Amino acid sequence: MAKAGLPQGTRDFSSEILKKRTYILETIKKIFQVYSFEPLETPAIENISTLLGKYGDEGDKLIFKVLNNGLNDPKNIEKSKKGFEDLLAGKVSEDVTSRALRYDLTIPLARFVAMNFNNIYLPFKRYQIQQVWRADRPQRGRYREFTQCDADIVGSYSLSCEAELANIYHDVFAALGLNRYELKVNNRKVLAALARKCGGNNKLIPLTVAIDKLDKIGIEKVEEELKANGFTDEQVQIIKKFLDITGTNQQKLDTLNEIFVNDEEGLTGVKELTNVIQHTKEVNISIDLTLARGLNYYTGVIFEAKAPKEVNMGSIGGGGRYDDLTGLFGVKNIPGVGISFGVDRIYDVLEELNLFPKNIFFGPDVLFLNLGESESSKSMELLKPLRKRNFSGEVFHEQTKIDKQMKYADRKNFNFAAIIGPEEFSQNMVTMKNLKTGEQQKILQSELFNFLSKFLHK
Amino acid sequence: MAKAGLPQGTRDFSSEILKKRTYILETIKKIFQVYSFEPLETPAIENISTLLGKYGDEGDKLIFKVLNNGLNDPKNIEKSKKGFEDLLAGKVSEDVTSRALRYDLTIPLARFVAMNFNNIYLPFKRYQIQQVWRADRPQRGRYREFTQCDADIVGSYSLSCEAELANIYHDVFAALGLNRYELKVNNRKVLAALARKCGGNNKLIPLTVAIDKLDKIGIEKVEEELKANGFTDEQVQIIKKFLDITGTNQQKLDTLNEIFVNDEEGLTGVKELTNVIQHTKEVNISIDLTLARGLNYYTGVIFEAKAPKEVNMGSIGGGGRYDDLTGLFGVKNIPGVGISFGVDRIYDVLEELNLFPKNIFFGPDVLFLNLGESESSKSMELLKPLRKRNFSGEVFHEQTKIDKQMKYADRKNFNFAAIIGPEEFSQNMVTMKNLKTGEQQKILQSELFNFLSKFLHK
Repeated sequence: MAKAGLPQGTRDFSSEILKKRTYILETIKKIFQVYSFEPLETPAIENISTLLGKYGDEGDKLIFKVLNNGLNDPKNIEKSKKGFEDLLAGKVSEDVTSRALRYDLTIPLARFVAMNFNNIYLPFKRYQIQQVWRADRPQRGRYREFTQCDADIVGSYSLSCEAELANIYHDVFAALGLNRYELKVNNRKVLAALARKCGGNNKLIPLTVAIDKLDKIGIEKVEEELKANGFTDEQVQIIKKFLDITGTNQQKLDTLNEIFVNDEEGLTGVKELTNVIQHTKEVNISIDLTLARGLNYYTGVIFEAKAPKEVNMGSIGGGGRYDDLTGLFGVKNIPGVGISFGVDRIYDVLEELNLFPKNIFFGPDVLFLNLGESESSKSMELLKPLRKRNFSGEVFHEQTKIDKQMKYADRKNFNFAAIIGPEEFSQNMVTMKNLKTGEQQKILQSELFNFLSKFLHK
Repeated sequence: MAKAGLPQGTRDFSSEILKKRTYILETIKKIFQVYSFEPLETPAIENISTLLGKYGDEGDKLIFKVLNNGLNDPKNIEKSKKGFEDLLAGKVSEDVTSRALRYDLTIPLARFVAMNFNNIYLPFKRYQIQQVWRADRPQRGRYREFTQCDADIVGSYSLSCEAELANIYHDVFAALGLNRYELKVNNRKVLAALARKCGGNNKLIPLTVAIDKLDKIGIEKVEEELKANGFTDEQVQIIKKFLDITGTNQQKLDTLNEIFVNDEEGLTGVKELTNVIQHTKEVNISIDLTLARGLNYYTGVIFEAKAPKEVNMGSIGGGGRYDDLTGLFGVKNIPGVGISFGVDRIYDVLEELNLFPKNIFFGPDVLFLNLGESESSKSMELLKPLRKRNFSGEVFHEQTKIDKQMKYADRKNFNFAAIIGPEEFSQNMVTMKNLKTGEQQKILQSELFNFLSKFLHK
């Protein structure tokens, strides 16, 4: 007998949880749509060659690989043996695993665009809300199967894209009641310019790794780390000046323009930031020069969305511009810019702040109690036209104690119980019990639709 | 460089296709909901022990197995070697593959019910619409990743469940415009009784395999096959009498009652069929005594839904009662009854009969052309309140030739183009071009919302 259990890091979503998840996902989806993004769905299984080498060595290890079928077919067995040897030596072999589970939604997007380049029109604005899988160590808030929720614009260099995406963040968080979210923004070109000022491009990684820690370890430790990584005193002074930049967004932009006066790419980065700031007047946006986010990937503006400060949650979204999306698949010079929402974390934030609207928890509309054969047949007959008009409900499946039936109504959170006993039956009446208020009222059966319409809008 | 491609038997769903799929899935979901079914989602990855042995030997082979991670970790390597040897010998080894992809939605439901038995209330009415994976040979209409769409009632012996499910079939097909669908119904107990009359239970499989072919090969060949399988002349005569049963549902029920007058289980089966027929007056239901459907699984009423005869498609849904759902996971005596919709086939049927409603193809509401910086800033400003009121749209991302912008509007199927050139800009006007009719009209910018509301209902 199989023991009923779930793999580590995976979850069932009951109706209770799905009501809340659906609320979040539908809110986001509706806003993607009013910004005229269109949906895309890609398969969970991709060719392993599509995924490998795209997420770094660590990423490659975290990809869930699918075993080929027919490994012990006589015609395959030699290849399978060889393939297993490769696996034991730490190499992925397509002879035994030629497919893998989607790891994110960006590489599948790139693959899709490359495959369909002659049939899509640019800019291609797509949103995608699907599961991804990662063989990460599960922990609080980190799962092996989880939902990603992305919007990307492919094929446009216009900075209006960045502004649109920042406005989407605002609209989504406002719609969810997270008015005190923060959207941090930085630019990869600015960070590259800083690295250039401090010893060249090969300093970019140690530099950003260090300044990324400023929040946690403070400026003195950052200074130590920089020196340990071979930055000169003079370079450390430049970096400190950079990190000391405070003030309003405009003040920060002004200072950056001074620092990078002789660096063309740096000035371009500042100009891009300026443009985004100018076109996001409603957004809680702030320039954060310590923001780094997967640098080898992004090439321009980068975003990170933070939960309101009163919740200890950190990032609830992120994104940025990457200027060669599809080059990996042989289609050159197609830029992209996108954002992502951390659905699981947003769920936890809304839960903690008690922000889920009450009405999403409403159960079905009406449970007809089952009090005998003629009575339940009559109930069935009355229910039919109600269902046609979008009222939800059922007749309890068997004639049993009223207590038990009412308990079922309660557990399933029905709005009304409809009771047709022998008396109601003979009078063409039905007793309606409002399960939220406890009020009870006997009405004509022919009045059912009007009665329910008064309470429940359809 | 990775070649951009998809694994065999998998598909991307573009926005065009998703509009149609969403129409089907939302129609079904809404009807599940008015019948007060509640949603459930389970993970794509299950423990392999949950899935193995549930779908027969053939099924076990078609399950996609996921490789464990860390196979070449020093601490795992001996187990990995042993596991690979097992795989090469045709045995599944949890040392190298402890997880697998969901193969259907029924076993995950059973697993969920067993795990949560103390927290759910019976009858548990759940619907589930998720992907499943099978390593089948792909062919027209058969995919390796496809959507299943199930509704099941767990924990009730009441025949009202069967009637409800038959009515759901009717409501869904009627809502989709497939009014000439057929719902075939039979009962496993009736087939068991026939086998008993013809040599006992071990004859059930060859008997049903033979009669299942009646449609295709005709009665004479069926007779031959039965004799080849050791049925006596007398037994073949009984079977022929059974297969000769024609007429209305009521006439069939009458004849069955005669044939099985001495077989208690057979009579129970006929009684169950009678009850379902009585409670499905609106349904295109017909008793089909040749209907078999995975006998070792079902224990009572079985269903199969067929597309309208004018389409050569066959089954577009099926289901039935299985009286020990969760026994496999240690929770005894929990009956279940469920139905499934074949979403991919329904899609093909609607396509062939041209039944997708026109309005599902509408694109976004309005594209503001980009005719200069001040003009596009103004457009952005006008778009904002429209989006807040659920109108969808965008400002074209860059200032370029009008032709190119109009082509984009056309490809993306926008309803309106909004044009603010220098003249409109100075007059606070906007020229609205209806892209469906070609009509053009200059209106005040302040009238935009009212103008769009006249054409597009939000």
